[in-house]
Amino acid sequence: MVAGLSVTQPIILLSFFYMRKTLLSTLCCLLAALGVKAQTPALERVEPMSWWVGMSNPNLQLVVHGSNIASRSVSLSYPGVKLKAVHKVENSNYLFVDLQVFSSAVPGTFPIKFKKAGEKDLTYSYTLNKRDKSVGRAQGVTSKDLIYLIMPDRFSNGDAANDSFNNLREQGIHRDSMFSRHGGDLQGIMNHLDYLKNLGVTAIWLTPEIENDEPHASYHGYAVTDYYKIDPRYGTNDLYKKFVEKCHSMGLKVIKDLVHNHAGTEGYLIQDMPMKSWVHQWPTYTKSNFRDAAVMDPHASPMDRKLMQDGWFDHRMADLNQNNVYVQNYLTQNHIWWVEYAGIDGFRLDTYPYNEPVYMAKWAKDVKAEFPKLSIFGETLVWSAANQAFFTQGNTVNRGFDTQLPGVTDGVLKDAIYEAINGKDGWTDGVGRLYSVVAQDFLYQDATRNTIFMDNHDMSRLLSMVGEDIPKYKSAMAMLLTMRGVPQMYYGDEILMKNYSNPDGLVREDFPGGWAGDKQNKFTAEGRDKKENDAYSYVSKLANYRKGTTALQTGKMMQFVPENGIYVYFRYDAQKTVMIMFNSSEKDQETTTSRYFERIGDAKKAKNVLTDEMVGLDKVTIPAKTTLVLELIPGVTH
Amino acid sequence: MVAGLSVTQPIILLSFFYMRKTLLSTLCCLLAALGVKAQTPALERVEPMSWWVGMSNPNLQLVVHGSNIASRSVSLSYPGVKLKAVHKVENSNYLFVDLQVFSSAVPGTFPIKFKKAGEKDLTYSYTLNKRDKSVGRAQGVTSKDLIYLIMPDRFSNGDAANDSFNNLREQGIHRDSMFSRHGGDLQGIMNHLDYLKNLGVTAIWLTPEIENDEPHASYHGYAVTDYYKIDPRYGTNDLYKKFVEKCHSMGLKVIKDLVHNHAGTEGYLIQDMPMKSWVHQWPTYTKSNFRDAAVMDPHASPMDRKLMQDGWFDHRMADLNQNNVYVQNYLTQNHIWWVEYAGIDGFRLDTYPYNEPVYMAKWAKDVKAEFPKLSIFGETLVWSAANQAFFTQGNTVNRGFDTQLPGVTDGVLKDAIYEAINGKDGWTDGVGRLYSVVAQDFLYQDATRNTIFMDNHDMSRLLSMVGEDIPKYKSAMAMLLTMRGVPQMYYGDEILMKNYSNPDGLVREDFPGGWAGDKQNKFTAEGRDKKENDAYSYVSKLANYRKGTTALQTGKMMQFVPENGIYVYFRYDAQKTVMIMFNSSEKDQETTTSRYFERIGDAKKAKNVLTDEMVGLDKVTIPAKTTLVLELIPGVTH
Repeated sequence: MVAGLSVTQPIILLSFFYMRKTLLSTLCCLLAALGVKAQTPALERVEPMSWWVGMSNPNLQLVVHGSNIASRSVSLSYPGVKLKAVHKVENSNYLFVDLQVFSSAVPGTFPIKFKKAGEKDLTYSYTLNKRDKSVGRAQGVTSKDLIYLIMPDRFSNGDAANDSFNNLREQGIHRDSMFSRHGGDLQGIMNHLDYLKNLGVTAIWLTPEIENDEPHASYHGYAVTDYYKIDPRYGTNDLYKKFVEKCHSMGLKVIKDLVHNHAGTEGYLIQDMPMKSWVHQWPTYTKSNFRDAAVMDPHASPMDRKLMQDGWFDHRMADLNQNNVYVQNYLTQNHIWWVEYAGIDGFRLDTYPYNEPVYMAKWAKDVKAEFPKLSIFGETLVWSAANQAFFTQGNTVNRGFDTQLPGVTDGVLKDAIYEAINGKDGWTDGVGRLYSVVAQDFLYQDATRNTIFMDNHDMSRLLSMVGEDIPKYKSAMAMLLTMRGVPQMYYGDEILMKNYSNPDGLVREDFPGGWAGDKQNKFTAEGRDKKENDAYSYVSKLANYRKGTTALQTGKMMQFVPENGIYVYFRYDAQKTVMIMFNSSEKDQETTTSRYFERIGDAKKAKNVLTDEMVGLDKVTIPAKTTLVLELIPGVTH
Repeated sequence: MVAGLSVTQPIILLSFFYMRKTLLSTLCCLLAALGVKAQTPALERVEPMSWWVGMSNPNLQLVVHGSNIASRSVSLSYPGVKLKAVHKVENSNYLFVDLQVFSSAVPGTFPIKFKKAGEKDLTYSYTLNKRDKSVGRAQGVTSKDLIYLIMPDRFSNGDAANDSFNNLREQGIHRDSMFSRHGGDLQGIMNHLDYLKNLGVTAIWLTPEIENDEPHASYHGYAVTDYYKIDPRYGTNDLYKKFVEKCHSMGLKVIKDLVHNHAGTEGYLIQDMPMKSWVHQWPTYTKSNFRDAAVMDPHASPMDRKLMQDGWFDHRMADLNQNNVYVQNYLTQNHIWWVEYAGIDGFRLDTYPYNEPVYMAKWAKDVKAEFPKLSIFGETLVWSAANQAFFTQGNTVNRGFDTQLPGVTDGVLKDAIYEAINGKDGWTDGVGRLYSVVAQDFLYQDATRNTIFMDNHDMSRLLSMVGEDIPKYKSAMAMLLTMRGVPQMYYGDEILMKNYSNPDGLVREDFPGGWAGDKQNKFTAEGRDKKENDAYSYVSKLANYRKGTTALQTGKMMQFVPENGIYVYFRYDAQKTVMIMFNSSEKDQETTTSRYFERIGDAKKAKNVLTDEMVGLDKVTIPAKTTLVLELIPGVTH
């Protein structure tokens, strides 16, 4: 979620983006906030504000928020809609209204009335829409795709009119500060879909684009204050829907980033909580211990486990109590709402191990019931493949409990690729580590559902991680685009954006050319220097090759025991066989290929996918720190 | 098995104990050996040479070896014994004779006749014994025990008369060479059982004590040349049986070390193989790639997997083909024979990952069917807990296949303890590593069945591994004796024997005092210097405390997230709670204990198990690099 989630130093890094202010009194305020606020308008919100006929689950729980709304009775009359129950809770500003929406209901609008003797009725006009079952909605992001991760504030400012709003806490844009708003928005992204398409990207993952009305670092996105509203600085709900539709029309998919674990403290549900148990309460501010191990450890202290799951991620991020069924309903419905509303294709789940496992499993089943093709992967920045696998579906290592989570962010593979590229060859070091980690795929039900990556918004960028060495950078990109899993790159890596996540957060710099008046425009070849164009071309060539090569997308993988620092694996299917050879040593190496007979068969030649040159397979020379991607030319059949 | 099995550098170390000679022609000889040898006596061997009435499995397959024995017919007549089949194989010097021994058979001796027209009958007098079902035989070694590993050649020479034999290939004893025979024997061990008993040991594991008639390094033991015969330099079969009986009478158990994977090339079954497929054949000598990962890797090259399992461990160690049912029967029966013959309590399985998994699972079931309490653990020197767990029973990570192996040698825990003691504190470094590894116990069906250890005959000794630092040494011993699992120590560690496994094999030095005329006798307090007595007393005190403390033997474990380099865990049951506190830092630390309230409860004081001092629990001072073992004194009940 934040850079703090680095496995090595989470506590130190945790609050870096809030360093300018600590808000020690937050919790006290929250506790005080429970109770009637006289100034709350009589009927402030009903959420979800609309729904659909024909959902797999006919049940719907409305959250009604308004001043002393609990003193009113609820009534409605609409064919196919049943008012099942009305729940009063601790805070009389809330009612939780259970509806049943039968498939027989006709889409349309009807009044829900809130009555009190001697007072004027309050009415909410509720709309039930027709589901949009068009092909290509909620289609899932798979290993056929290449995901491009964007922080919307930092990619491109397409609409200067939405840079700042008087009614939001953070004011203005300050591009000289990494922790302020820079003005990037949905329109900016929409303006550059051609660029992404040409690069070979097929899916876009935005860090959370819903409202974060926080006083500081609101660009960050993981402190949500309105679950049903695109942050106005990015655009509107309607624009978001158009963004998804435009992506779809261009063959691009969209992933939404969800935060189950915590909520921004400025949201109405935290400022005026329905009940104390809406969030995890502690006598004083208590942060998570960030120890995923405590979740899975059979020897764990229950308190350590509780600290992990119920401790707060940050002062400004209230830890939601997912054992509270109202919270469960609220989150699940919100997520389903966005898919049906906008047609998005996949979910990325923030801080996955911090959530309540039983709820998360139920959540996944509920979501899959509505959108069977939608893809889901959880952020798990944990120590080992076994720890990652613990969180994945299929009871592979987490016995007796199925998380229902299809895939995770495969940080362990990332570290192994870096070790292969930067490390010194050894039995389980250097390429030996990468070989060993890939071999651990036996731990997963299906490792190809893991999202693989070299960096993201919380991590030092690829180019910096390889010491700005271009062959190493290309090797990492080559592995990312040919290894099993769903590859994900981070915006700007293709134009050699660099920097470290610690301490300055500079991995979230603006994409040059994304703002009117930028001195450089690296969206165009003319704006990029020679090195940058070389990198862009490398990524683009390989990504586009991958797009047309099922062997790399869905083919099987075979890897071989490394020798002399050379690591070789194949991706293959009935159409093609692609051989990937990485020489991790500091010197060029010539190698024979007879060891790989099981996959080479009678092929004598291969095409270097990056250079289009033909290569004889008898002996192959691999330059130092270089990865060759070779498409085998089938031999003549005897 | 050999030091070569170190995870980090196996290939380099592999053949160190054979470095004085390479025998390139071994394989050629083996291939040539297939065929009739005129000089083979007419009836050289029948194996097993005896059996028992009343085994769970009534089937018995005799291997009959003799010159052109296949030209003869086989007959027998004994009530309750049925001759089911006679198998001729490639080499006419063999017959495989299938018998069925019904429980109705009366123990006794009967002739098996081998007849050929025109030649004198050959007769083998076969004995069926009564099973010995005395209590305390084959009783299993569990987490209640403390295993002491001995290389029999290097512990004590109790019988100078058996030091060397003219009919064995290696001659004489040469105590100045680490690769020659030193003269240690079973009688030497039997002479020092009191020493071991006083130390607190409850089980003895000997490296293989059956015949290794190899020309060099025969002391090593893992190149077996006669499966049914104690190496004469250690004693006789009868003496071995007496050794086990004497151990049992003193409350000590015995573990036998089995080598399924390979056989010494000088054995009759290799010199005159029943069939080519008795061992894995390769066109030229082909060693294993030593990559356990290739066994579990879903992306493995079949050839890499084959190299791992079928490649040879060493020129002098023929890789047995465990897919050959004759080999299967031969090994399984041999192992069962030794348990029923001598009453041994557990098996340690050498080089476990190199074996054929399906056979090993069947083997374990067959052995457990005969001896349900007998314990079994496999040597798995692999990369991670997940890789270890792959080889353990219960389908925990190895989906769809149950290895039936109860426990493994927990080398990953060992490395984690060393990291905790020697490493620098970090999220998953130092004590963070140990915490993380222990948390991975979710990977096993039951981690308490793992054998835990700090060193063995293939590894650098504990004292050297901690830089000869006594507090660190004591911390390692304390963790070994209080952590979950079956603790195993290596002979001489308690008297501060030291040295590195590489390059000189000095971890196999003689126990001082084990030989008549030794200048020092460290079996006695008088023979040990002050530091050695301090170490001995530490181990002895804790080991004996463990003997009487079920909390440490079979109690539950609870561990806490490390803080400030302090790692705390508890072992507890209804009788006692023991708190183990390790301060990994270089300076003394005072710490509060309120974090551990879940286990401390209302206890205010604890007894330091090593010093018998009372310690207040409000604040505890832990010296640098020191482990405190504290038995809680229950608080007054209100």
